[in-house]
Amino acid sequence: MAHLTVSVEYGLHCLLWLAGSGDKPLSSRDLADFQGISHSFLAKIFPKLEKAGIVQASGGVRGGYLLARAPEDISVLQIVDAIEGRKPLFDCQEIRGRCAVFGGAPPEWATDGVCAIHLVMLRAEKAMRDTLASQSLADIGQTVAKKAPSHFSSDVEGWITARLSGRLGKPSTSSSGEEVLS
Amino acid sequence: MAHLTVSVEYGLHCLLWLAGSGDKPLSSRDLADFQGISHSFLAKIFPKLEKAGIVQASGGVRGGYLLARAPEDISVLQIVDAIEGRKPLFDCQEIRGRCAVFGGAPPEWATDGVCAIHLVMLRAEKAMRDTLASQSLADIGQTVAKKAPSHFSSDVEGWITARLSGRLGKPSTSSSGEEVLS
Repeated sequence: MAHLTVSVEYGLHCLLWLAGSGDKPLSSRDLADFQGISHSFLAKIFPKLEKAGIVQASGGVRGGYLLARAPEDISVLQIVDAIEGRKPLFDCQEIRGRCAVFGGAPPEWATDGVCAIHLVMLRAEKAMRDTLASQSLADIGQTVAKKAPSHFSSDVEGWITARLSGRLGKPSTSSSGEEVLS
Repeated sequence: MAHLTVSVEYGLHCLLWLAGSGDKPLSSRDLADFQGISHSFLAKIFPKLEKAGIVQASGGVRGGYLLARAPEDISVLQIVDAIEGRKPLFDCQEIRGRCAVFGGAPPEWATDGVCAIHLVMLRAEKAMRDTLASQSLADIGQTVAKKAPSHFSSDVEGWITARLSGRLGKPSTSSSGEEVLS
């Protein structure tokens, strides 16, 4: 199992498509169908992204989500933290103070400052987070755009337009109106 | 919950003490009692460290573990990988090929090479692993040694000597002889 969950992968892919959809709000069901992934899974990710100010909900019958900021201003780190929470690399239990020679009363030098092992882990975590912070959603979008043929963006736009106009079918709004934003 | 488990913390602390014990083999029970941590937990970590060639078992009535290499030649990364396994930061599910506009038959450009999202994660993982690889057990030992007063190493040596000579008590060897190496 990887350190980061599949929620991060799904969330990042969805945000890339939202970055490309411009001012057309897409629901999590639109995004799930577009990518062939689980809608119920995606529906749990979007409230986290909304809470973190990465997407904003757009209401109405054709409601959905839009990016809340420009793709250049959304870093991969912000997305990972929004979805996973601020998960540390290492959770120091401070076992250094339990050494038998201290007899249950560790001297100040033994527990002062950050544990030497924890320090190495904090450095490694910083290196990882700095790399994720240095890459934006726009950077990833550019990498993808360089690979895709010219017709791809119009293919995508066509699918979205058709979807939004109901030609590809869209699930009916539930009595609670949940589908409008989900 | 952190990305790395408490097993990594326990393993690293044990190896630091082994680095300081020189040619005196310590069992996982010695190390557990010395640090006030669970023996049954430690007993599961040492076979992994032995398999990775980081410690070696020393048999006999006073058997235990010794470092298999100099502390300078054991990196934090090697210890983490030995205990956790080579756990990736991100496990790419290749969902890029499922895009609805491909109709189930993604073109080569869409799935060729590493996914742009995965690429960012691989860079972040490399930055983290490079940091862990750059630090050795000896480096951490030196950080601790700088903080400790001069009498600390003799206090530790005294505890170990007393333990090995049986003065502080040592659990009797089980019928299977398991305690000799556990």
